[in-house]
Amino acid sequence: MKRGLMIVVSGPAGSGKGTVNGKLLESDEYVYSVSATTRAPRPGEINGINYHFITKEDFKGRIDRGEMLEYTTYCDNYYGTPLKEALAVLESGRNLILEIEVEGAMNVKKLYPEAVLIMLLPPSFAVQEARLRGRGTETEDVILKRLERTREEVPLVDQYDYVVYNRDGGVEICADDIRSIVRAEQCSVRRHKEASKEYFNS
Amino acid sequence: MKRGLMIVVSGPAGSGKGTVNGKLLESDEYVYSVSATTRAPRPGEINGINYHFITKEDFKGRIDRGEMLEYTTYCDNYYGTPLKEALAVLESGRNLILEIEVEGAMNVKKLYPEAVLIMLLPPSFAVQEARLRGRGTETEDVILKRLERTREEVPLVDQYDYVVYNRDGGVEICADDIRSIVRAEQCSVRRHKEASKEYFNS
Repeated sequence: MKRGLMIVVSGPAGSGKGTVNGKLLESDEYVYSVSATTRAPRPGEINGINYHFITKEDFKGRIDRGEMLEYTTYCDNYYGTPLKEALAVLESGRNLILEIEVEGAMNVKKLYPEAVLIMLLPPSFAVQEARLRGRGTETEDVILKRLERTREEVPLVDQYDYVVYNRDGGVEICADDIRSIVRAEQCSVRRHKEASKEYFNS
Repeated sequence: MKRGLMIVVSGPAGSGKGTVNGKLLESDEYVYSVSATTRAPRPGEINGINYHFITKEDFKGRIDRGEMLEYTTYCDNYYGTPLKEALAVLESGRNLILEIEVEGAMNVKKLYPEAVLIMLLPPSFAVQEARLRGRGTETEDVILKRLERTREEVPLVDQYDYVVYNRDGGVEICADDIRSIVRAEQCSVRRHKEASKEYFNS
């Protein structure tokens, strides 16, 4: 069976990455990564579905052994992507989507260089700002913080493999761009290093 | 306007590259490269449509100045792909298909590194051989020569960017693979080197 791809999707607030990834997940070929966390499960949360609930000791051990693709801390708890579970998804032939921030993406690239890094962007910073203000759900303070964060994140696009622009009403176009990227990557020669040998021997 | 892509499609006899490229050409987004030649036009052949008919002096001068993306000689005449005409197609926003052999492809890559090199392959050498014999249009001698040539060409797949497999009845799948490759390449960060700068300034 063909191995699935690890797809990292990052994007600033207002890029629409949740909506675009939601489109991809309509197909069985795409799976969201389930994070590990050290916080206690809330009522109704199921281990392995919502999160992999693990102990702090286990989490720290995995970090030390390079078994966390990326992680972050929040309110004295760890959250991150376990490598082992990620690889199990890929082995099943499905593509794994990691919706993570730029720092996490850089770590994934280091630990799993075959990952495909995609940055989703609004058409421009001006449009992003207008979108954030337009939705009217955040305070001015939060909006300014997000825009400040964007100024740090977007320059790292040159560490990514692909940039996809989410123009107005372009969610389906973005999803198609990502599907094309996945299909093209599956044809890339660096994923077929034995192509010539296999050609003559199969 | 977005610049078109230069797409090199190579493949051994029986890979079906002519049929696959024919599928792509059904859309206006794809254009076949018109070769230049030093031979005289035959009745009905139109300059700029069938070939660019040019003099030997002109052709040799273009080779010397690096203005021929690739060329070959046959029956004392030159045949090749003029860079200038190729670039004009790309500037118009259309994708240019060059259906050429491996040596030519390597030369294109040298002169125009942005070119995307795709090798189309039958599922295996055994299937290729069966296809060539099955169509019954070539003599045994010609078939053996083509298979011999394949042994030289396919190992160079590692100099290509993508490998597309033409499985039985897979012409439409191959055309879709190539369309996906083109779409993905248009999103690749190396084709958007100013992405961050443009994001904040547009």
